[in-house]
Amino acid sequence: MTNDFKFYTELKVRYEETDAMSVVYYGKYFVFFEVARTEYLKNIGYNYVDIEKDGFYFVVAESNCKYYNPARYDDDLKIFAKIEYMRNSSFNFLYNIIKKSKNKNEPNVNIAEGNTVLVCVNNADFKPCKIPDYLRRAIQNFEGF
Amino acid sequence: MTNDFKFYTELKVRYEETDAMSVVYYGKYFVFFEVARTEYLKNIGYNYVDIEKDGFYFVVAESNCKYYNPARYDDDLKIFAKIEYMRNSSFNFLYNIIKKSKNKNEPNVNIAEGNTVLVCVNNADFKPCKIPDYLRRAIQNFEGF
Amino acid sequence: MTNDFKFYTELKVRYEETDAMSVVYYGKYFVFFEVARTEYLKNIGYNYVDIEKDGFYFVVAESNCKYYNPARYDDDLKIFAKIEYMRNSSFNFLYNIIKKSKNKNEPNVNIAEGNTVLVCVNNADFKPCKIPDYLRRAIQNFEGF
Amino acid sequence: MTNDFKFYTELKVRYEETDAMSVVYYGKYFVFFEVARTEYLKNIGYNYVDIEKDGFYFVVAESNCKYYNPARYDDDLKIFAKIEYMRNSSFNFLYNIIKKSKNKNEPNVNIAEGNTVLVCVNNADFKPCKIPDYLRRAIQNFEGF
Repeated sequence: MTNDFKFYTELKVRYEETDAMSVVYYGKYFVFFEVARTEYLKNIGYNYVDIEKDGFYFVVAESNCKYYNPARYDDDLKIFAKIEYMRNSSFNFLYNIIKKSKNKNEPNVNIAEGNTVLVCVNNADFKPCKIPDYLRRAIQNFEGF
Repeated sequence: MTNDFKFYTELKVRYEETDAMSVVYYGKYFVFFEVARTEYLKNIGYNYVDIEKDGFYFVVAESNCKYYNPARYDDDLKIFAKIEYMRNSSFNFLYNIIKKSKNKNEPNVNIAEGNTVLVCVNNADFKPCKIPDYLRRAIQNFEGF
Repeated sequence: MTNDFKFYTELKVRYEETDAMSVVYYGKYFVFFEVARTEYLKNIGYNYVDIEKDGFYFVVAESNCKYYNPARYDDDLKIFAKIEYMRNSSFNFLYNIIKKSKNKNEPNVNIAEGNTVLVCVNNADFKPCKIPDYLRRAIQNFEGF
Repeated sequence: MTNDFKFYTELKVRYEETDAMSVVYYGKYFVFFEVARTEYLKNIGYNYVDIEKDGFYFVVAESNCKYYNPARYDDDLKIFAKIEYMRNSSFNFLYNIIKKSKNKNEPNVNIAEGNTVLVCVNNADFKPCKIPDYLRRAIQNFEGF
């Protein structure tokens, strides 16, 4: 599943992220996706902080998640991320969340997968605009399309 | 869009729910969906607290959201909810979030729509099980299918 | 305890606000305090949205909470709030959170109490500044000091 | 300020943790405190997951925070933590949060400090009980009291 991802980031589940079922609350996975986006952009040389300073916001137009197994407090998660396609002003991130096993005899567990469609907007009026060229090129170089 | 929903609940956006773009963080809409589910079930006569006491959890198998317009701090939102279909152990909630205009001359604004597929599981082992009959009948009566 | 509060607002505990102990996560009470501040200000005639538009932010300088009993999913809470004192640029909110009993024979339960010291700052540079006169007068009128 | 702390953990501010003032929401610092508690316990050899399995919960009886400077999205934070005192069933964690400067010429910035009083309870009935001896000794050894 995660064979074709070239990037991942890691995090550990916080108590705050669990709910009364003793598992991670379903909405928190979208926070994990956000962490992966931030680190993905840094990995290809760009900081979202600086992109905002250049006058852009990336707003989420659509988000989707499928949940396969629950994650719990203190679990070590890998969040794989890739950009699947890029249009003029929008691009689609795919994610796959895996739980790392605590010992060698247990396999990793597939937790969730999802995607978010992001739109590059002018941060003055939230109107869609072209993805900055430097970022477009960096994404194309990294993903190879 | 919301014509065929028979239920909605209302809430007001909290400061905590906004982010540095001054809009509601994209993951928070899934919390709003949760509030609507809770109130929907109460409206048809059942309290999720009691369903858990009966030995069941409703776990989310899939969640999706499309974002049309940003909501902001102190906005008054209506969250429409309906159950679109029901299988043996799963059912699908649809949602539509609308921002109520502050004055009569402004129209309401379409904020987001989404769905969550829920699976009824045994709360001892998280294995899927049949939706309790009393709840199945109440949903069928309410939605008319 | 809550005898000398002239204002309260109500809310219902969301599933997202619980944690793996099946109780409200300790940090969420500060969100409930925020909801009470917002509604308190509205109750004396002012909307924090408009205060921000006038060029001010209220930033939190200090927050404290004592926890007496756990609150749980779907509990109905009353959050009492009052302004205890006001200085040139700062003021202190006191809070008391009570769980409403589900039936007449059970007493209400004392959940938590706390306070937040807020500082009025210029929203351009976050420097402390005088609390706007209109707001100062409204608070004095309401609290009677 | 942080001279007498023997432990710290690090984290990066997530977009979700910011609010419409473009700074970290005041309630989120209590989540950062929780992360530091978890890592502190691991550092002295104990995993809170296992403590829960042994039949205990650590519930928060009191929490306090003073805010000195705002933290923002993508800031690198160090959360220093120490246990200041231990009683029969309770103990007090102190915290100090520092923002690491992005370059050598800028000093670190003092963000916040706080504390949480934790009570060891039986996880069946939430009644206070003695802190397990193994943990008491490990804390005494680490803090040197």
